[in-house]
Amino acid sequence: MISRMSTLFLRTLRDDPADAEVPSHKLLVRAGYVRRVGPGIYSWLPLGKTVLDNIARVVKQEMDRMGAQEVQFPALLPREYYDSTGRWVEYGPNLFRLKDRKGADYLLGPTHEEMFTLMVKGEYSSYKDLPVILYQIQTKYRDEARPRAGILRGREFLMKDSYSFDLDDEGLKRSYELHREAYIRIFTRLGLDYRIVSAMSGAMGGSASEEFLAPAPTGEDTFVSCTNCDYAANTEAVEGRPGAALDASAEPALKVYDTPDTPTIDTLVDLFNTFGLDRTVTAADTLKNVVVKLRAPGADKTEVLIVGVPGDREVDLKRLEAAVAPAEVELFEAADFAKHPALVRGYIGPQALAEAGYTYKVDPLVVPGSAWITGANETGRHAAHVVYGRDFTPVGTLGAAEVRNGDACPRCGSALVIGRGIEIGHIFQLGRKYADAFQFDVLGPDGKPVRITMGSYGIGVSRAVAVIAEQKHDELGLVWPREVAPADVHLVATGKDDTVFDAAARLAAELDASGVRVLFDDRRGVSPGVKFKDAELIGVPTIVVVGKGLTEGVIEVRDRATGEREDVPVAEAAVRIRELTS
Amino acid sequence: MISRMSTLFLRTLRDDPADAEVPSHKLLVRAGYVRRVGPGIYSWLPLGKTVLDNIARVVKQEMDRMGAQEVQFPALLPREYYDSTGRWVEYGPNLFRLKDRKGADYLLGPTHEEMFTLMVKGEYSSYKDLPVILYQIQTKYRDEARPRAGILRGREFLMKDSYSFDLDDEGLKRSYELHREAYIRIFTRLGLDYRIVSAMSGAMGGSASEEFLAPAPTGEDTFVSCTNCDYAANTEAVEGRPGAALDASAEPALKVYDTPDTPTIDTLVDLFNTFGLDRTVTAADTLKNVVVKLRAPGADKTEVLIVGVPGDREVDLKRLEAAVAPAEVELFEAADFAKHPALVRGYIGPQALAEAGYTYKVDPLVVPGSAWITGANETGRHAAHVVYGRDFTPVGTLGAAEVRNGDACPRCGSALVIGRGIEIGHIFQLGRKYADAFQFDVLGPDGKPVRITMGSYGIGVSRAVAVIAEQKHDELGLVWPREVAPADVHLVATGKDDTVFDAAARLAAELDASGVRVLFDDRRGVSPGVKFKDAELIGVPTIVVVGKGLTEGVIEVRDRATGEREDVPVAEAAVRIRELTS
Repeated sequence: MISRMSTLFLRTLRDDPADAEVPSHKLLVRAGYVRRVGPGIYSWLPLGKTVLDNIARVVKQEMDRMGAQEVQFPALLPREYYDSTGRWVEYGPNLFRLKDRKGADYLLGPTHEEMFTLMVKGEYSSYKDLPVILYQIQTKYRDEARPRAGILRGREFLMKDSYSFDLDDEGLKRSYELHREAYIRIFTRLGLDYRIVSAMSGAMGGSASEEFLAPAPTGEDTFVSCTNCDYAANTEAVEGRPGAALDASAEPALKVYDTPDTPTIDTLVDLFNTFGLDRTVTAADTLKNVVVKLRAPGADKTEVLIVGVPGDREVDLKRLEAAVAPAEVELFEAADFAKHPALVRGYIGPQALAEAGYTYKVDPLVVPGSAWITGANETGRHAAHVVYGRDFTPVGTLGAAEVRNGDACPRCGSALVIGRGIEIGHIFQLGRKYADAFQFDVLGPDGKPVRITMGSYGIGVSRAVAVIAEQKHDELGLVWPREVAPADVHLVATGKDDTVFDAAARLAAELDASGVRVLFDDRRGVSPGVKFKDAELIGVPTIVVVGKGLTEGVIEVRDRATGEREDVPVAEAAVRIRELTS
Repeated sequence: MISRMSTLFLRTLRDDPADAEVPSHKLLVRAGYVRRVGPGIYSWLPLGKTVLDNIARVVKQEMDRMGAQEVQFPALLPREYYDSTGRWVEYGPNLFRLKDRKGADYLLGPTHEEMFTLMVKGEYSSYKDLPVILYQIQTKYRDEARPRAGILRGREFLMKDSYSFDLDDEGLKRSYELHREAYIRIFTRLGLDYRIVSAMSGAMGGSASEEFLAPAPTGEDTFVSCTNCDYAANTEAVEGRPGAALDASAEPALKVYDTPDTPTIDTLVDLFNTFGLDRTVTAADTLKNVVVKLRAPGADKTEVLIVGVPGDREVDLKRLEAAVAPAEVELFEAADFAKHPALVRGYIGPQALAEAGYTYKVDPLVVPGSAWITGANETGRHAAHVVYGRDFTPVGTLGAAEVRNGDACPRCGSALVIGRGIEIGHIFQLGRKYADAFQFDVLGPDGKPVRITMGSYGIGVSRAVAVIAEQKHDELGLVWPREVAPADVHLVATGKDDTVFDAAARLAAELDASGVRVLFDDRRGVSPGVKFKDAELIGVPTIVVVGKGLTEGVIEVRDRATGEREDVPVAEAAVRIRELTS
């Protein structure tokens, strides 16, 4: 295929768009790949559509290769399906809702679990039919509160979503593993730098959910990786393994102090440093006790959970939620405190909680033998020298504190480092949530019904265009990996000489005939400088210049990524370029 | 590619779905191509997705070949663009409208004229940039009042829409002709039987708009074709050329009769047959005069138009609208009659209209020299022997009567026949409507602004799946043309013998290796009868049976369309099948 710049629907821009903050957004607009239509809504110009199609093709090839079968659902969906699972309401303002001419409720699908479950239930009824994996590459909608960063987080976007249907947990694990391997192949082919990180804490079974994150300074996700072992996790999902015990045998006995007028941890610390303790204390010596309510899936009642975290750390509510999933976390509010007089708001200490019948857990930073300043369970009073194992004993460990650089790896104890990344894929052992909602059983080998179990797996296809741009660019422009690039070769003819343009056209035709995709800058009256700038901005991996060198019988071949240049005799040019591009 | 029936996500149905009326709907559901999700909303199962993709690929190849460039717009569009052209309101209840979380208005795009115009205006500014043709293959939405016939008329559907941008009418004609040729290639490759019919009457310039109609008894469109020449037109667009004149020299003088209590044409005819005229009269001897208001595009005022049609024909309002386009037709109501006392409702006759200053035209069935019974322009009175050319002279001819089988061809006068068809494509010289709305000028060669002119061109891609099924089926099932079929070969292994299944598997692998797409019925424990029925229902063009014949060293090759069967030696099977499928 030859695209000619003289007719290609493309105008590059010299300046960054005013609303662009991240490099991929700036470059994809400047290089003429996308255009904004509204908040979080973009159109694809020819170069962008080509890259998008290239990515979708890689995804499709690898999904087909693993035996998944392609289907397609509508984006416009009747409300009834999402009422069955409660998601019509649960999605809140993130869902685009609309009515048809008869007043019936519809939504624009943000994800299709309900539809896939019902489709398979509609066709299959026997254990012999399973396993099956279905997928679609389809436009999805989410009414993001703050659509930003161009196509990185749009409101209309293209996703591959797939779902596996198995008879048992072993089958689900196999389907999950097939996806994991396919995703590795896909993201490798796309030329992405990525990390596979746990998306769910160990409490839930380790690998029940993993995210594929592309490290990028502009990423909205944070993840940890161990400097020693191969542990990596979304910070929300860092496991809460207990740390090594301390020796507290020298610690003085628990002592209670009056602590009026200490509304903050800082004021509390300042006050304790006037009490003449054996050392200067800091916020890290205080123990915050956070009270929440947990609601098990479908449960009417909630249970109270109290978690202790060091006072110098924020509570990471998302991490706490991940640790207790599938239970949901609700805040403990004034009315709740009123019903629980044993929990003295602002003055809770663990030393009385077990006796009062409460479930008390600690963040792994709170290790056995550690001594703390904490609430005395009386208004206006705090206790010091409160020792884990002597004065209180939690019933378990649970990651709830914000994770910091240098924290201990829950697997090997070495230092963790925190990075930022963009989610490009997610694989998830969903289990029986949707099968339960729709009572999806198949007849088992023994004639008894078997409730099936599902996995769900996603890849952001349009997002991947931006993520690759985010990772693969330099100060001059985009630098596409070959498999997704809009062309293999950007062939630039320079000067005014017909001989040059004719030679370039011949080379373009020769390359095209051998299957090389050529973007041919055949524009007359455009300076070499402008053409080179455009080529660098557009980011095709190989740039070929037919120009002054032609009088000496050579053309120049440049590598966009490394900047390396070589002169190649005209007669050998096509062969050399085919080598580079295959 | 080999798809195996043992794992393919497919269950054929023995019975027609209850809501299906047309053959394509019944068969596409029974054969497992589509499933209903809601009114006018369908999901694609693997076989259906393959056929849909095959059609989209043919469309894309031919659009690329003609030099069109692919882009993609969102389906979710901000209201502002459609306010500029008034279409936010004009679309009425056919438009899906919604609000986002901030209360801003959006729509689901039913067509993208506004977006294409603004996209090209955003990038291009010089005459040197033109011409350009852009297209997309994209999901569109229309809230049909009566979604019916499965995917023939859905509310979410896949369309190819393209738009040409030219400097002048000559350029527009070239872009239009390029599309016409590409559409002929596309529909020929898709194996469709189709007619190209005028979609706009001659008054507008002949070929300014044409439809590609697929003849089908279930079609919602009606079209005429001449039994002699190559004239063909949508019935709405049949040209209103004047017919041959009659000799009225023997006609008696105009005479007025009292005609009380004649609320219908039938009662009027009965009354006149009591008056002792020179012959028995019928409704065909009466002249109805229809009054409408015309509003030119953007005009504040309307003009009155009166059209005479024979009393035995209904007025075809759509034909009248097509004949006066781009003016819009508004009904003449009681309040209008009150303002025009010269127009006596129910008693209008042409003999007084010119004098009263009204524009009077006739349907071409009303020929010079013809004599009529018509209104006498007085309440309760009608006139007979009202002769065209003697008692009234219309200012022109305009097709407004319903067209019937046997009517005269406006080109050659031979008989027209009426057929039913389904619109599969539409090409349209749009002109400057959208360029005017958005003031889209480019700088001309002389430095002066030139307003560009546009064409719009559509193909119903998902609809084409149903239209092909509508045309290509028999009593046993679907009969796909090879280019769109979900596979080239449906390979059926019959019996219980491992030798048979092994031989079939080897043949499948051999065919696959040479690029033949194989649907392999490798199911064990399913009877040959069920397998053959499925193969006939699914409709792959070549059916290959590996079974009993194997003991004699032959396999059977069946042609799905003709039913022809031949036995082929096993050793030659792959070669023979490749011949048939390439």
